[in-house]
Amino acid sequence: MASTTFAFVGGNAGPWRVSGLKTVTGEPLPRVERLEIHAGSAAAPPFGWVLRGATSYERYVTRAEKTRLLVHPPVLGRPEATRAALIPITKSDAWWALPQDERQAIVLASRHIEIGLKYVRAVARRLHHGRDLGEPFDFLTWFEYAPTEASAFEDLVAALRATEEWKYVVREIDVRLERE
Amino acid sequence: MASTTFAFVGGNAGPWRVSGLKTVTGEPLPRVERLEIHAGSAAAPPFGWVLRGATSYERYVTRAEKTRLLVHPPVLGRPEATRAALIPITKSDAWWALPQDERQAIVLASRHIEIGLKYVRAVARRLHHGRDLGEPFDFLTWFEYAPTEASAFEDLVAALRATEEWKYVVREIDVRLERE
Repeated sequence: MASTTFAFVGGNAGPWRVSGLKTVTGEPLPRVERLEIHAGSAAAPPFGWVLRGATSYERYVTRAEKTRLLVHPPVLGRPEATRAALIPITKSDAWWALPQDERQAIVLASRHIEIGLKYVRAVARRLHHGRDLGEPFDFLTWFEYAPTEASAFEDLVAALRATEEWKYVVREIDVRLERE
Repeated sequence: MASTTFAFVGGNAGPWRVSGLKTVTGEPLPRVERLEIHAGSAAAPPFGWVLRGATSYERYVTRAEKTRLLVHPPVLGRPEATRAALIPITKSDAWWALPQDERQAIVLASRHIEIGLKYVRAVARRLHHGRDLGEPFDFLTWFEYAPTEASAFEDLVAALRATEEWKYVVREIDVRLERE
């Protein structure tokens, strides 16, 4: 439950090789070769970028969903999970101006947590919050999966992008990664 | 709606003279003479402290409450508001482990926003979030009021401390301030 800041450093170093970097919506992010994740802070490399976000308490998860999440907690670092994705997104001012009950209703109607739960055994994920840190991206979501689960991951991402909630996304980058 | 970080610097400088500093719950905070507020970051003075928090989107405010808040927005910096209070609090791990729906229910049952609204014309306030910044306090609330409204402020603080929500507060400091 404690907030821990992670720095995602895109540059020439790190265990994760960038296999693709696509701008889905809004301002692009420069292409880099490799990615490294640090707990805490990190400086941006000379030709690259650093994105920061903090793990935090849950903003929209209900008791019923949390009970299911506790039965199947996402496990990062599984040896077979040699594929990963980093998806930084920013939501619109209109989203952030909504009161909590209306944001909650949109997240519920979008079945956001439901969708994540459906794929939780195939795709482990960790959400990082950047907005209060003054970061360019409101959220950084990190996904890990085995190559055999690549189509499950594509289904997960496609399902999220088709939601009502995603209409509020004004910037989204899709970084795909592989490690040996 | 944008997140802006503010630094509350307790030391020997600044427009606000510390008239009282009381530990309500948990670990104390050293007494200082004066307080200065900076937008952005600031270093701690040699004999003092700096507490940081970010203004942010609302975590529990409903549409009905927001409508009322927009009619009576809190106004900081009024010339007659020569009294202020800074109340840093931290909530327990048990609070942060609750899912959003249960935290929301406690805040609603505690009439937290309702209580603030009742006093909004007498007491202007601004909430800052520190948890995701890795700060020792989860929240810093800054209050400003005229000397003639001092008893309204005491009523407001007493009403909040009597709530169910406040049972989750594990650290609270009450800093009182005056300016000329």
